Amino acid sequence: MTPGRPVPPPLAKPLPDLTTDTTDPTPPGPRLAAAYGATASDSGLVPLTVARRAPKEDDVEIAIEFCGLCHSDVHATRGEWGTRNYPLVPGHEIVGRVSRVGSAVEDFSPGELVGVGCLVDSCRECDSCLDGLEQYCENGMTGTYGSKDQRNGDANTQGGYATSIVVDRRYVLHVPESLDPAAAAPLLCAGITTYSPLRHFDVEEGDVVGVVGLGGLGHMAVKLAKAMGAEVKVFTTSESKVAAARDLGADEVILSRDEAAMDAANRSIDVIIDTVAAPHDLNPYFRTLRVDGALFQLGLPSEDMPPVNPGALIRRRIAYAGSLIGGIAETQEMLDFCAGHGVTSDVEVVRADQLNEAYDRMVAGDVKYRFVLDTSTLGTPSERADA
Amino acid sequence: MTPGRPVPPPLAKPLPDLTTDTTDPTPPGPRLAAAYGATASDSGLVPLTVARRAPKEDDVEIAIEFCGLCHSDVHATRGEWGTRNYPLVPGHEIVGRVSRVGSAVEDFSPGELVGVGCLVDSCRECDSCLDGLEQYCENGMTGTYGSKDQRNGDANTQGGYATSIVVDRRYVLHVPESLDPAAAAPLLCAGITTYSPLRHFDVEEGDVVGVVGLGGLGHMAVKLAKAMGAEVKVFTTSESKVAAARDLGADEVILSRDEAAMDAANRSIDVIIDTVAAPHDLNPYFRTLRVDGALFQLGLPSEDMPPVNPGALIRRRIAYAGSLIGGIAETQEMLDFCAGHGVTSDVEVVRADQLNEAYDRMVAGDVKYRFVLDTSTLGTPSERADA
Repeated sequence: MTPGRPVPPPLAKPLPDLTTDTTDPTPPGPRLAAAYGATASDSGLVPLTVARRAPKEDDVEIAIEFCGLCHSDVHATRGEWGTRNYPLVPGHEIVGRVSRVGSAVEDFSPGELVGVGCLVDSCRECDSCLDGLEQYCENGMTGTYGSKDQRNGDANTQGGYATSIVVDRRYVLHVPESLDPAAAAPLLCAGITTYSPLRHFDVEEGDVVGVVGLGGLGHMAVKLAKAMGAEVKVFTTSESKVAAARDLGADEVILSRDEAAMDAANRSIDVIIDTVAAPHDLNPYFRTLRVDGALFQLGLPSEDMPPVNPGALIRRRIAYAGSLIGGIAETQEMLDFCAGHGVTSDVEVVRADQLNEAYDRMVAGDVKYRFVLDTSTLGTPSERADA
Repeated sequence: MTPGRPVPPPLAKPLPDLTTDTTDPTPPGPRLAAAYGATASDSGLVPLTVARRAPKEDDVEIAIEFCGLCHSDVHATRGEWGTRNYPLVPGHEIVGRVSRVGSAVEDFSPGELVGVGCLVDSCRECDSCLDGLEQYCENGMTGTYGSKDQRNGDANTQGGYATSIVVDRRYVLHVPESLDPAAAAPLLCAGITTYSPLRHFDVEEGDVVGVVGLGGLGHMAVKLAKAMGAEVKVFTTSESKVAAARDLGADEVILSRDEAAMDAANRSIDVIIDTVAAPHDLNPYFRTLRVDGALFQLGLPSEDMPPVNPGALIRRRIAYAGSLIGGIAETQEMLDFCAGHGVTSDVEVVRADQLNEAYDRMVAGDVKYRFVLDTSTLGTPSERADA
C-alpha cells in the first residue's frame, strides 16, 4: 500500500496479492466472472456469471475491486431507456488491478491500479475518435455494458458489477495510487461527466461556476470546480441540502424556489453545470448567467423539458449546451488532476446483496453521494455462464 | 460619386450637395426633421415632425438618405412588444451623410457617408461596454428608437424614418464609399445580426454553415458566410425559394419538410444561423450539426418554442445559443468586410407613402429581401414637432 494513502472506507476489502501473477503467469484462456445483473426489466439484480474472453494481444484483463452505481445503471437494467438484451450486467465506474495483459500491451502491467469508464471501444477512425473525442464517435461508441461489441463477435458488453473484465488497452485508464480505489470509481463517470464541460469552458481561477442539483454528478461538479479555482454557487430546491453543499466547498447556496435569491444571483455566473435529470425550467438559471455564459445540461429527462425562452439566450449571447462524459485522454487528464488536487467522490460502499436496496435509495435520492459496489462480495462464478 | 460605384437603384435620390456645409458652417441650434411614425398601435405610419437636438460636443448630425425596414419596426410601432410611448418613429438601419459635428468630434467630417444601427448609446462603464459589446450593456443599451435617452433629458429616442438624426460619435459608423448607400442600410441591423454569430463562431474557409429562413436576415447570412469562404446550406420550407437561395450563392438547398433530405444532411454542418421568428422545432436542425456545432437563434418568436431535446445537445456537445446584433467595433469591422467583399443587401427602395403597404408585405413575407425607405420622399418638417 502506498505510504500516505487514505484509509479505505469500512467495507473496502484488502488488496489482493497479485505478486504471483507477475512471476508466475496465469494460464491463457477465457475466465468466468461472478457478477450481478438483471435477467429482465422486472428481475431486479440477481447473481450471474459472465464469461470474459481471453486477453487478445491489445487487451488488459482487470480484477475489479470496486464499481460505482450510476443512475444510468438503474435506467438500463429496468428497461427505461428502451429495449435491452438480457441478461445485463451494469456498471461503468470500474476500478481494479491488472491481472493479465495481451502480448502487445506495453503501457499496463499486472498489479497496476486501473479504471474503465463508460466506453470500451469506438471506431478509432472517424474525426471524433481521431480528435480524442471517442464519446462522440460518429459510428457509435461501444458502451461498457449493453452495447454490441463489434470487434468481439458482436457479443453484448457486460459491465463492472463483476469480478473481472477484459478491455482493449486504448480504453483503460491509469488510476493514480494516491487515490482511494473505492472513492475513485465514480470519477470514471460522474467525475469525467462534470470535468469535461468545466474544462471545455476553460474554467479557471476567478470564474464563477453554478451547479444545479447535488447528487452524484453535482457533488463532483462542486469539488472539481473548486479544485480549478472557481467560486461555486449551488442551486438546490431543498433547504436540507444547504449545509451539505457548504461542506462540499460551495461558496454560496441558492434556494432556486426563492425568487429574491434568484434575482440577487442575476448575471453573476460564468458557467452552470446542470445535473438534474428531471424536467425543469431552465429560464430562471439563464438569468443568472453573465454575457457569453453557458449552461451545460448533463442529465437526460425521460419527458419533455419546459420550453426555452430564446430571448434569454439572445440578450446575453448565452449558450445552452450538452456534454457527454469525456474522451479517453481527457479522462486520464481528469484522474491525474484529481490525484493532484486530492479530489475523489464521497461514497457509501455496498455489498452485492444490498444492490437492489441501493437502487431504490438512489431513485429516492437517499445517497451521499455515490454507492460503490465492493466486488469481493459478489461470490464466486458458477460454471454455467449466464451473461 | 466614387468611380466604379454601383448604379443606385431606380428610386435612389441624387446625393445632396454638402459642400456648402463644410465651407459655410450651418448655424447652431436644434433642427426639425420630417419623419414617418406611429401615433398609436393602430395608427399605421403617418407623417410626423421630429425635433433633433443641436449637436453637443461629441455629437454627429446626419442627413439621413436611406433607412431599412426591419421586422422589429413593425412589432414596435404596432405595440406587439409591449407598451411603447407614442409617437414613435422607427428605423435603425440608417445611412446618410454628416451634416454637422460637435466641437470634440475629430473622426467624422461633414459630407462623409456614415451609418447608425440599433443602438445610439450605452453606459460605457460596464464590462460589456468596456469589452466592445455595447449591445449587451449591463445597464441597458439605448435603442435607436423607443428608448429613454438618459444623457439627453430622458427623451424618447426617435429612429431613422426621418430626414436627420443626431448621435454621439461613439455610436456612428463609417460607411465605405464603395457601398451603395441604399443597399448598405440593412447591413446596420440584418447584416451585423448575422455577421456577429458567424464571427463569434470563427467561421472560415472549409466550414459548413446552415441558414434557416431566407428573409432579410437569412439572405445576409448566406452572402456573409459565402464571403467568409464557407459552404452554405439553406433550409427552407418552401420549394419556391430554392432557386432564390441558389441565386444568393447557397451551395445546397434543403427542404426542411423532406425527411429524407434532412436525414441526408445529418452531421454535416458546423454552425446554423436560424433567422425564423415564428415558433419552430429545432430538434431536426440539431441533428444536422457536427460534434461541437452550434445553432444561433436570432429571431424572437412571440409564442413558446417547442421543447428542445437535451439528448440532441448532449450526444454531440452542441450549443443552442442566441446572439444580439453586434458591438460598435464589430459593426465597423462588418462594414469594412462588406466593402472588401462587395457584399450588400438586396433591397427594394420605397417611398414614404408606401411604408404601410411595405409593412403589410413584410408580414406576408413578400419582399426580396429588404425594403429601404428613401428619406427624400418624407417631405419637409412642419413647424410643430410631434415626436
